[in-house]
Parts: sequence; structure tokens; C-alpha cells
Amino acid sequence: MSVETMRIENGFLQLIDQRVLPLAFETVMCRNAAETAEAIRSMVVRGAPAIGCAAAYGVALEARIAAGQMRPIFDATLEQAFSILAASRPTAVNLFWALERMRRLWTQQGHMPSDEVAALLFHEACAIFEEDIAANRAMGAHGAALLTQDARVLTHCNAGALATAGHGTALGVIRSAVEAGKNISVIADETRPFLQGARLTAWEMVQEKIPVTLIADNMAGHMMKSGAIDAVIVGADRIAANGDVANKIGTYMVAVLAARHNIPFYVAAPLSTFDLSAASGDAIPIEERSADEVTGFRNVRWAPEGVLVANPAFDVTPAELIAAIITEKGVISRPDRNTVAAHCSAANMNKT
Amino acid sequence: MSVETMRIENGFLQLIDQRVLPLAFETVMCRNAAETAEAIRSMVVRGAPAIGCAAAYGVALEARIAAGQMRPIFDATLEQAFSILAASRPTAVNLFWALERMRRLWTQQGHMPSDEVAALLFHEACAIFEEDIAANRAMGAHGAALLTQDARVLTHCNAGALATAGHGTALGVIRSAVEAGKNISVIADETRPFLQGARLTAWEMVQEKIPVTLIADNMAGHMMKSGAIDAVIVGADRIAANGDVANKIGTYMVAVLAARHNIPFYVAAPLSTFDLSAASGDAIPIEERSADEVTGFRNVRWAPEGVLVANPAFDVTPAELIAAIITEKGVISRPDRNTVAAHCSAANMNKT
Repeated sequence: MSVETMRIENGFLQLIDQRVLPLAFETVMCRNAAETAEAIRSMVVRGAPAIGCAAAYGVALEARIAAGQMRPIFDATLEQAFSILAASRPTAVNLFWALERMRRLWTQQGHMPSDEVAALLFHEACAIFEEDIAANRAMGAHGAALLTQDARVLTHCNAGALATAGHGTALGVIRSAVEAGKNISVIADETRPFLQGARLTAWEMVQEKIPVTLIADNMAGHMMKSGAIDAVIVGADRIAANGDVANKIGTYMVAVLAARHNIPFYVAAPLSTFDLSAASGDAIPIEERSADEVTGFRNVRWAPEGVLVANPAFDVTPAELIAAIITEKGVISRPDRNTVAAHCSAANMNKT
Repeated sequence: MSVETMRIENGFLQLIDQRVLPLAFETVMCRNAAETAEAIRSMVVRGAPAIGCAAAYGVALEARIAAGQMRPIFDATLEQAFSILAASRPTAVNLFWALERMRRLWTQQGHMPSDEVAALLFHEACAIFEEDIAANRAMGAHGAALLTQDARVLTHCNAGALATAGHGTALGVIRSAVEAGKNISVIADETRPFLQGARLTAWEMVQEKIPVTLIADNMAGHMMKSGAIDAVIVGADRIAANGDVANKIGTYMVAVLAARHNIPFYVAAPLSTFDLSAASGDAIPIEERSADEVTGFRNVRWAPEGVLVANPAFDVTPAELIAAIITEKGVISRPDRNTVAAHCSAANMNKT
């Protein structure tokens, strides 16, 4: 089976509602940029590459609505769409990368009629979507080679098909390794507070009959100490120029534990996740989400009234703890300022 | 206010039902050893010292029921009570310590009429209970001196009044520091899967107006990295002869992170928590609990069918990561085989 995280249905963007998986399978229809931004903010759709793709479609939807208008009106509408989408979530850079790519195309066509610009923007959003799947496939091939035949692989959060246009980044590597005949089993951190691991990673793996063992986040250290983990692989929301990786809260703890136990810690992320303007992880904004995500889950509250709450949605794992970053262009072993720069500039040269 | 984790009410053992706190305040009445064992197993009462006290009362309740019987019948009844209680939970050694203390008293009175033995056993259970509160008060005084004036203290699980006869071990240190005029604030790990931190520690601190910030377990590393934590203090379920500490799952991860950030990691536990027959943490049995604790919470399930689950209830923190162990007799700095042996033998000599 293939998970369709998002697709165009009757001209609108249809998203799997990831807030209710796996107990319910529902979809949300986004008809314009504002609805798409709200779906990103409320985590109907989440995962850095998926957010980027959804945002690109959000621009395309808004452009279609305004198609046929005079350019100044069309352009003003689009400008607002970009603002709304850019304000939806702060940490994943793929969002800004996708918006920037859409903006570049738009601003390059200063004299084109708005309906033609709208058609180009729609085509570009589809290209971003298709390229993401291809990137995940390429990452899968590069990453699968790093996993041993019977690797028991810990992952945190969901960097799967649901977090991307398809196949997944971290789970894409696992899928590709399984396709290559390896006997991979997965240990999934449940990933409080949103439980992406328990709900989404577990669901994806069960669908594909890849053995998956669910643990609470605080069990990962004990599992490593017990010799039950051979490798860790996670996705990323933003990678700084020095190889520091912002990813789902808790990733840093897993990386520190992996280092203590000499377990390789891998990050799988497309080049669109790199933010070379951020010198290090310190420059990456960390989203703080609402308290009610931590005091309970959905409609169930278990913490007492009067308690304060911290809810940082991401943390930064320093490059020194990362064995390799896997991109669609290959593997950056021992990431640092030099290896990241070399990889990104080689990738750019190959592109042109 | 004072939390009455357990008390004798109309001759029975009344326990606060810690499974439903803080949203409901209910009590469970245990009339005999079997009901007490079931309350321990199902975590109506939890926390190593509290389990020890409850088990002692369980023996006393059963002895009262059999009081007046001929000794062989009385003794057989008691033997069964010890078996049932010893099988309730495996990791916290205070359970076995309390049962052993009750057994010693019983077997020393080979020729005494059963009603007199029952009275002695009841008196002994009360003594264990009262001594636990006194030990926590003493630990509080020793431990409070280790905390700085404005310390922001992370704790994991609940080592509070609810985990003991009263005052608490780790939270007892915090309470004593506050009583001594220190401006302590608490960061509470929610402590999946049973959520003792979110439900019990947060509740105890809110009751006493000690500022408490709730976080998901996977946020502790980020908080430490951000400079938001000055010290860590936790309780213990069993301490080996070399200073290795078994405590609630996740403790090990916190200790590894604290070491990385040069944050002192303290353990507060009475001498009844030491198991000198265990050479190291490797000798401590780790309880595996049921899968449904991890796939959801109470009646809410969020993981998909078909997922495997690991649910170790405890982990072992090696002594090398522990700055000090605080007992009722003082502070063991840099615990190891020698310092633990010296502390325990000095405590024993003082006792006689």
C-alpha cells in the first residue's frame, strides 16, 4: 500500500488528517492558502518535507483563485498568501525553501498574464512534490547501505511517508533497506506530546509488515544499554551550515545516548532541509507550542490545574553526535562546516 | 496540607488510589494481604518506600484476621500472606526489606499465642511507617543543604509524599529546602507511561504552591542544554552495593544528560533501599509491565493494532553518573563500592 499524505482532488489539496491517525482515517480539504496554513499550524499535516510540499500547493491554490485578475490584484493576493503560509510554523526550513522557490518563479514572470502565472505555479508545486519522492528514493538507496543485514533501528518521531510527499526520509531508508532484502526491525519512540511515533510511525510500519516495537521516549537509553539497538535514524527539520540538526524534541537526548553506547546516529534529510544561512543550531528558531499538548492528549487531561508547562517542539543535536547525514546526493560522514559545504556545493554544481 | 498516602481506618488499610489522581481523589480499602498485594501490583500505591510500608500493613492485616487461631494454622496463613505480597512487584527492594523485617519478628516468637504475635506485627508495621517519615525528614535536611538558594530542580517520576509514608524522598529534599527558605522551583518529567510526574509530582507541588513546570520526558535534554536546570534529584527502587541505582524507567537517560551538562545528579533514598547482596545494577531484576500501558493511557488507545511493545518499568543508573546518594544518615558523595559500604556499616553501628 502507498500512503497518500496529500493529493490534488478536484482541484483542491486533500490531506490525511494526521491528528486522528491511526484510530480514524479522515481527510481535510484545503481550498486556499489560509486553509492550507491552518492545516500546517494545527498539524493536520506535519513533517518538514510534507510541510514544504503543502505550502507550495497552498500558494498554487491561491494563485488559481486569483487567476484572471489584473496582475497588481493577483500579485497582492499572492503576497498575502506567502505571508500567511510563512507564519504557519517556524522551525522546518523546507517550508521557507518551498515558498522561496514558488516566489522566485512568480517574480520572474513580471509581465505574464495572471492565469499563465497561476498555471506555472501549480506546475511548480507538483514538481516540488514529485522531486521530494525522488529525493526520498535516492536517500533510501544511500542510507540502506549503512544498515547491517539484521539491524534493529531506533527512530524518533515520524520521518515516514506521512512526513513527506511519499516513501519518507528516515523511514524511507528503512523501507529501501527492507526492499533490498535486509531483515530490519524498528524500535519507535512514541514521541510525546503529539505521539507521532506511537500513532504514525507504528502505523506505517504495521501497514507494511515491518516489525515495529513501540517504547515510551524515556526507554531508549535502557534499550541501548541492553544491547537492543544497532543504529538510530531520524529526519530533520533544519540543518545548519555546521551540520547541527534541528529535529523533533527528544532527538538530542537520543543522540547523546547513542554516542554513549557507540551506536551510529544517522540523519536522513533532503537538501531542502539545509539552511546554510544558519551558522550553527543556535541560529535556528525553536517553536514553542501550547501547554495543552503536554497536560494531556486530545480531550483527555491528566495534569492538575495550576501546573506550568514548557513545550518546545524541537531541539538541536550538535553535529559532533551525528555519524552521517544522508541526502539525495549521498552521505555526509562526520558532518561539520567543511563536509557540509563540500556536499552542498557539489550538489549545486551537479544541478546546473 | 499533608498527603495521607495510606492510613489505618477502622482496622483496615486505606490507600489513596494513585491511578486516578489528580482528576479524582478516591481511596481503596485493603482488608487482607491479598487485597494489599493487588493494590501494589495494580499501582493503587507505588513508590518504593510506600510499597514497603503497605506490604508490612498487609502482613499485619492478615495476622489480625488469623489471630486467635492455633499457631500452625496462623503460621501457615502468614506464610501464604508473605508469598502473595512478595510476588506483587519485583524491583523495589523496600518491599522485601519490610517483609523480611516482619518475618524476623514473627519467627522470633515461636511460642507466643497468635493474638499476641498479631499485635506485635501490627505494632511493627506502624513502626516501619513512622520510621519512614522520620527517615524522609532526615534525608530532607541532609539533601536541602546540597541545593543552591534559587535552584531549578528536575525530578523524574514521583518520589514524593505519595511514594512514601509521608514527606517524600526526592520531593522531601525539595520540601525541606523550601521550608529552610530556599527559592526552589521544580521541573517535573511527566514520566510515561504511568505519568507519575504529570499526575502526582505536579499535584503535590501545586498543593504546596511550589512552582512546578511540567515537561514531556524527551524535553529534559533540551532544558539542560538551555541552562534551565541546576540540579536533578530522584528517588530509588533499589541501590546495589556499588552504588548503581535502579529507579523509574527514564532515570538513566536523565543521568546521562546531566553528566554531559555538568549538572549534579542526586538520589534520595532510605537505607531500606540498599540491597548489598546485589553487587551491581546487573543483579537487579527489572519489572516488565503490560503493553497496554504504552499503547495508550487508561481507556484511551492511540497506537495501532499489530504493534509490538516493550515496557520495562525501571532502569539502572551506574554509580559513576551519581554525584551523591542522600540517606537518613547523611550523604554518600561519589558513591562506589567503598563509600557505600562505609556509609551502610556506620549506619548499622549507630543503630546498635
